[in-house]
This record gives sequence, C-alpha cells and structure tokens, in this order.
Amino acid sequence: MTGLVDRWSDVVGRSRALWLLDIHLRGAGQVMLQNNPLTGLLFILGICWGAIAAGNLALAIGGVVGLIVATLTAILLEADETALDQGLFGFNGILVGVAIPTFLAMSPATWFILIIGAAVSTIVMLATSHVMKVWGVPALTFPFVLTAWLVVLAAYSFGHLSIRGLAPPSLPTPIGETAASLDLSAGFFLTASIKGISQVFLINNIITGAMFILALLVSSGWAAGFAILGSIVSVAVALALGSSPAAIDAGLYSFSPVLTAIALGCVFFKPSSRVALFALLGTVFAVIVQAAFDAALAPLGVPTFTIAFVLVTWLFLLPKLDLKPHRHEPLEDGIVTDR
Amino acid sequence: MTGLVDRWSDVVGRSRALWLLDIHLRGAGQVMLQNNPLTGLLFILGICWGAIAAGNLALAIGGVVGLIVATLTAILLEADETALDQGLFGFNGILVGVAIPTFLAMSPATWFILIIGAAVSTIVMLATSHVMKVWGVPALTFPFVLTAWLVVLAAYSFGHLSIRGLAPPSLPTPIGETAASLDLSAGFFLTASIKGISQVFLINNIITGAMFILALLVSSGWAAGFAILGSIVSVAVALALGSSPAAIDAGLYSFSPVLTAIALGCVFFKPSSRVALFALLGTVFAVIVQAAFDAALAPLGVPTFTIAFVLVTWLFLLPKLDLKPHRHEPLEDGIVTDR
Amino acid sequence: MTGLVDRWSDVVGRSRALWLLDIHLRGAGQVMLQNNPLTGLLFILGICWGAIAAGNLALAIGGVVGLIVATLTAILLEADETALDQGLFGFNGILVGVAIPTFLAMSPATWFILIIGAAVSTIVMLATSHVMKVWGVPALTFPFVLTAWLVVLAAYSFGHLSIRGLAPPSLPTPIGETAASLDLSAGFFLTASIKGISQVFLINNIITGAMFILALLVSSGWAAGFAILGSIVSVAVALALGSSPAAIDAGLYSFSPVLTAIALGCVFFKPSSRVALFALLGTVFAVIVQAAFDAALAPLGVPTFTIAFVLVTWLFLLPKLDLKPHRHEPLEDGIVTDR
Repeated sequence: MTGLVDRWSDVVGRSRALWLLDIHLRGAGQVMLQNNPLTGLLFILGICWGAIAAGNLALAIGGVVGLIVATLTAILLEADETALDQGLFGFNGILVGVAIPTFLAMSPATWFILIIGAAVSTIVMLATSHVMKVWGVPALTFPFVLTAWLVVLAAYSFGHLSIRGLAPPSLPTPIGETAASLDLSAGFFLTASIKGISQVFLINNIITGAMFILALLVSSGWAAGFAILGSIVSVAVALALGSSPAAIDAGLYSFSPVLTAIALGCVFFKPSSRVALFALLGTVFAVIVQAAFDAALAPLGVPTFTIAFVLVTWLFLLPKLDLKPHRHEPLEDGIVTDR
Repeated sequence: MTGLVDRWSDVVGRSRALWLLDIHLRGAGQVMLQNNPLTGLLFILGICWGAIAAGNLALAIGGVVGLIVATLTAILLEADETALDQGLFGFNGILVGVAIPTFLAMSPATWFILIIGAAVSTIVMLATSHVMKVWGVPALTFPFVLTAWLVVLAAYSFGHLSIRGLAPPSLPTPIGETAASLDLSAGFFLTASIKGISQVFLINNIITGAMFILALLVSSGWAAGFAILGSIVSVAVALALGSSPAAIDAGLYSFSPVLTAIALGCVFFKPSSRVALFALLGTVFAVIVQAAFDAALAPLGVPTFTIAFVLVTWLFLLPKLDLKPHRHEPLEDGIVTDR
Repeated sequence: MTGLVDRWSDVVGRSRALWLLDIHLRGAGQVMLQNNPLTGLLFILGICWGAIAAGNLALAIGGVVGLIVATLTAILLEADETALDQGLFGFNGILVGVAIPTFLAMSPATWFILIIGAAVSTIVMLATSHVMKVWGVPALTFPFVLTAWLVVLAAYSFGHLSIRGLAPPSLPTPIGETAASLDLSAGFFLTASIKGISQVFLINNIITGAMFILALLVSSGWAAGFAILGSIVSVAVALALGSSPAAIDAGLYSFSPVLTAIALGCVFFKPSSRVALFALLGTVFAVIVQAAFDAALAPLGVPTFTIAFVLVTWLFLLPKLDLKPHRHEPLEDGIVTDR
C-alpha cells in the first residue's frame, strides 16, 4: 500500500492533469474528512451506484459537476496551495452537486443554479475558514449547508425551479408515541446503520453504504470503526427516545452522528479511551441536535443537511480540550484529585 | 459579614467536600452574575419554594441535578481552575435542569436528556467563552439558551419526550389593542415586578421573587437595586406599548430586562449616572427584544428563555465603551464640546 | 468640483454647526457607501420626493429623525472621531427611520420605538464593527437589518404598534410557473432597474431612483455604473429564474444586488476586469439570497431588508482575496499555469 501511495505521489507530481484528478478525488474523500484519492474514487462510485439504483443519474452527474466547478473556482481564485492539494475546496461542491438534484427537479435553470452554488461554495469555504481560523477550528461542511439552504429556499421564489422530494413547509407537531410493533432485530440495526453512512451523501442505499465503509477502510481503520459505531449509537439513541422508525431506517438520524464520531473520535483528536467517551457524548448529542433541526426547519421546508454535525463538532472542538490519555492518578472519591 | 466570608474561605480551602459545595452554590449564584455561595443557597431555596408551590418537585430536583452534572463535567474536563472556583460552570446547568421539567413531562427519557443537556451545557460554556474571549465579552446564559432550545425542539421529534406547558407552534399574529380595563394599581406593578425576578429561574411566584431579592442583597445592594429597577422599568415599558397584561403580570416581560439591568448597571460597568442611563436604554431595549423573540419563536414552539438578555447585553458590551463618569464639561448647546 | 470640496472642508472645519450638518449628510450618503455630503443631500431629497409621492411624509421625517438620533448617540458615546467624520454612525439610523414608518402605522408609541431603535442602531454599529474588525470586514447595513427586524417583530407583541403594508406571516409556498405573458420590453427593464435603486431606501419610485443615480454620480462614476449594472443584472436573473414579475417591477429583487455590486465592484476592491467578474458572481448570488430570505422570513412576517447584501458581501470579502489585475500569463488549457 505505501509503495502504491508513493508511486501515485510521484506520478501526480509530474503531470498537471493527474494532479487535477488527484485533488478532485481527494475533494470527494474530504466529505468524510479523508485526504485520500482512492477513498474519494470509491465515494464517487458509491454515489453512482446509488444514483443508478434510484433512477436519478443527475445525482451523480451533479456531484461530479459540483466537484469540478468548486475546485476550478478555488484554482481561479488562487486559493491556498496546501489546502488545494488536500482537496479542501471540493467536498462542499460535490455535496451541493448531489443535494440539488435530490431536492429540485433538473432543468436548465436548476443546472445554472447548481453551477453558481458550487462556485459560491468555494467562496463560502474560504470565508468560513478565515472566520474559524481565529479559534483554530475547521469549516467542516458548513459551506455546503449554507449554500444548499439558500438554493433550496430560493427555489420557493423562483418559478423555474421546482422542489420535489421535500415535505411541504409545516409547523412542528409532536410525533407522539410511536407504534409499539417495532422490529428491534439485528437486521433493522444493521440496515439502518449502513444506510446512515450512505446518507452522508444523501443516498438511501445499503450497497452504497457498504462501498462507503470500504472507502473509509482504505484510508483509515479508525475512521471506518468510528463511522460504524457512530451509526449504531445513533440508531440506538433515536430508537430509545422514540423517533420515527421510518426515518431511523432510512438513516436520517445517523449521517450527522457518523460524521461527528469520525471527526471527534479520530480526526481532530487522537483515539484513546477518554477521546472515545468524549466522541460518544458528541455522537449522542448529535442525535438530539438532528431531531431539533428536523423540527426547527419544518416551517421553512428545507432539509437539515449536515448542520447537526457542524454545530456539535464546532461546540466540541472549540473548548480546545486537552484530551490526551490521562496522565494522573485518575479519580479518588469520583473526583480528579491532583488539581 | 466579612469575618464570616473569611472563615468560609478558610474552611473551603481545607476540605475538598466543602470546596465542592462552595462551587456548586456559587454556580447557582452566577445565574444572576453573583459569585456568592450564600446567594446561591438562597436561590436554590427560592426554587424549592416555587417548585413546592407549583406542585412540581421535579423543578427543584432537576435544577440540583443539572447543577451537579454541569459542574462535575467541568471538573472531569479539567476546565480552568479560576472559572471553576467562581461557579462559572454551574449556572447554565441549573437553568437547563429547571427548564426541562418546566416544559417537558418527566420520564426516564426526559431525565436522560436532562443529564446529557446539563453535561453539554458545560461544553457549550467552554466553547462560547473561547469564542467571546476574542472580544473580551462573557458567555452569559447563552449556553443555557442554546442547549435548552435544542432539547425542547428535539422533543417534537422524540415520541418518548412530551411537551407540556407550551403554546403549540403558530404563526405570529398581531396582539391588537389590549382591553382598556387595565388595572394600573401600584399592586399590579409590585406583583409583576417581583414575579419578573422569580422568572429568571422560570418560576412564577411572588415569595420566590422576594427570596431572590434577599439573595441579591446578601451579595450586592447594587445588584438588588438594579434588579428591582430593571423589573419596574420593564413592566412600565411593556404596559406603555400595550403588551398582554397577563404576560406582564406573570413576569414574562421582565426576567431578561432584570438580568440586563444587573449586568450593565453594576456587574460589567461600575455604577454611575452615565452607566445608569446606558443600562436604562439597554433595559428598555431588552423589553423590545423580548417581544420580538416572543413573535419570532412562535412558529417553532419554544420559549425565548433569556436570549433577550444575552443579545442585548452582548450588543451593549461589545462596543467596549468607556462609561466612566464624564470628565469634561458636560454639554454645550446639547453637544459634547471638547472633541 | 475639487475647489468646492476644499472650500466645504474649510468651512466645516471652522463651524461646529456645519460640521454637524456635514456628518449628518455623509451619514445619509453612506447608505450606498459614499462618503460625500452632497450625495447624502440628494439621497434625502430623493426620499422626500418618494415620501410626498406616496403620501406618507412620515417616511422622510422618520428618516431625518433616525439620522439625527443615531448620530447624536454616537457623539454622546464618544465614538471614534474618524468614523464619526465619515458619517458611519448615521446610515443605519436613517434606514431604521425610513423602515419603521414604511411598515408600522405611526403613533406616539411608534415614534418612541423609532427613537429607541435609531439610538440602538448606533450601539449595534459599534458592536458589529468591533466584532468584524477581527477579520477586517465592515459592518455594512447589518445594524439596520438587525434593529429593524427586532422592532417589526416586536410590533406583533405590542398592541400600540400596528403593522401595515406587510403580508401576514405564512409558510413558504412555491410560486409555480409565472404567467407567460411577460412584458420583456426595454421599458420594463429600465423601470424595474431604476426602482431597484430607489428601493435601497425602501422607496418604490422611478424619480427617486433617478435622483439616487445622480447622487451616486456626484460622488463616483464607478458607483453609479455598478449600481445601474447591478440592477439590470438582478432584473435579468430574477426574470430568467421565473420570479414574480410584480416583485421584479417594484425593484424588490434589485436593492441588495445593487448594493452588492457597488461594494464589491468599486468600494472594497479596485475596479478591474477580474473584480468586475467577481462582483458579477456576487450580484447574481445576491438575487438567489434575496429569493431565499423572501421564503425564509415569510413565516415571521418581516421584510428581508438588506440582509442579502450584507450576507453576500461579507462572504465575498471575508476570503481577503487578492483580486488585482492578474500579473501572470492568464490561462493555459483552462488552468492557471504558474502555480
């Protein structure tokens, strides 16, 4: 594997076209915080599978167009080299490009707005990174979330953009006690958890989910592990609190917790038992935040996208905690002793 | 009094258990920005009285549990010593712990979310403090407001959490001219103003309000004075602008102005006539902001909590004004002369 | 012209009263980012014309009162001299003063809230400037937008403030395909574009629009040019995407893009072909953001004011891009070559 990686770096260093290919693939990989072109390639293949299965090829085409437009915009704006090399200007674009065909019917006007949205996602990425740099915290997928919200909201005012696949705006109503006949089989857990991972790219497909897990494995065993655990935890919490089983089954309570678990568990902190506990709290809270935004955005008729992941991960990274494995005598009478 | 304070400091310095008790009590006191354990104790007693009077003991138990969970989370995360000693990680937790039983029916799921919420309130406190430090402005009760909003909103999506005591989500409708037969007696003013102070802890009880005033007096005469004046001003402004008399009587236009008056009048600025004028403007504006959020949050079906206090106090502290008693000839022709 | 400017500076330097007049006029001019007293005077005359034409003199009186209150508040708070001299504390006040009589029926309570709002707009300006200074980005009209939102929202809760000229709160509904019989004449374009410029001050009047263009010309040919081009582009984009023709005709899709075009095209960047392209992208995106906020704010029953301008201009300024005319061989194979 290392030999392959070295040869790829070598080849990329010599060819402008391959460099371009490389940063696009890394851009796709960065959606789950992986700076790895093979991961990105497998993500794109997973999206293609999901698009074909859903009979909506525009998902895959939109994603690739968004990825290219966002990356080229960054090049034209002479964005930071290192960030460019890591694919940091592609991941918001690919998400915008998948999200728009998911929620709007495609037409020339929709393609126009997809291209504008992908280009703007790079500007929002630059802006957000500049703002968050003050606290040493990354932009995450906030540029995607903001851009996609604005585009979907705008569709309500534009006659040539038509919304589909979205519940109409409505005031929040308490879901009430869910039906008792809930299937708590291992099968339900497995299906929901894997679809939760595919929903990171807004795709509801178990094969796509499996491809995404493989894509993570290629880059980092920790990332794959935290993704799977994060998804299982989110399904368990959502079930325990009585959420809609249909939404849980479609993975809709899991995509943000999955990203939160990866981010807190092994990307921005080094894995350890303390970090795992902290990531667990974050993952549980991400389920609550997902539920909160499902209600909060109901009157606007826009999806939550990954705002729960962004908000929770920002809140949990901002304190700049020192979560190294604890170097003291741990606890005495339930309290840290050597204060 | 000073002798007592010294002896208490002495005792607290020698016993880990009493230190813990001390920072918990200070945590309660910090809800009204008082770093004083006796104030905190009286606040907790006032909450207990209100809980008993309302026949809802969970208010008091929730508050104490929230206080403990939030404080212990800060200890486990090895938060800043000085902040810990001042009780700065308890006040959001106690508020979360009182708010949840006020608006959700208690069940195992509700207690679970209360504990998660209180723990998270400490992380949000650390995050907010880190963000606001850039401008030298405190977090205030924002961590409570954000956490409590997310939890109450999430309850709409979770079947095992049921909302109560909240008007269902609705679009804002103009209140219209209020009935003419308004009782403008001194009694109305007094009742509304004292209940406004009890509502800082979401309690609608005149005895609790009186206990809170006593609690403030123990710590600072200025704080008690600004609280009372802030409450009276808010009742007057709300009446003058034609708000719902029932809401005014329940103290719902007053809790944020009360906190604003204390914060601007004597905590973050030193009392003077210029400062009093500035705090007066802030207090009046807090009534308007309270009314604005009452309308803005109606479609979401969540309470405003103390967002009006947080927003106004941030806006009035951020300019970093030099509000020392004026050292020039004051005014000539209505204008400051020596520019 | 330069002679006149010098003599004016001279005169202003010697008379306190004329200095006051000068900073008030500059305050009006700063609404379109022009530090020029004659521009400000023409803006005020344009408002007067619009107020008379609409039979609502309170618009003009409110605007002048707001301008004076906001500016005097800044003087009393001893705000930064240089900023004061440039009129930076007046533009939010005049906008608050025009907005309130546009959307609320005037009464003693409304005048009270107009004065409070104008005074607070200066505090919000100081706060916002202090916050944004961290990233070297200006406050723009955000203080106006925030203050005006809060006041209009509050009116729903205050019986003595009555809302008028605002659609009642409603959930967003897709506009659907607009009628085919659209008049695409040059006349429609011209009318809509000029009214779009008058709408910067919330006025729907073609003569006022023409006076505003003259006012800009007096200060800067670039500003006038970018205003006109921005307005035409916004009308074209809104038409192409199928927005409501009535709203386009009233200039409601144009006021924020106009301000965005001026800000990005010639105020915060130096005009060049690269800057013009960047400003074009910003202007197009401002139309989308305007449409988005039209939908997002529908449930609250408040106008968007200039939030689209503020948000887009912040996002486009925050990256701190170096948009000087390009000094490399421009492109090879569609890509910048000398990385």
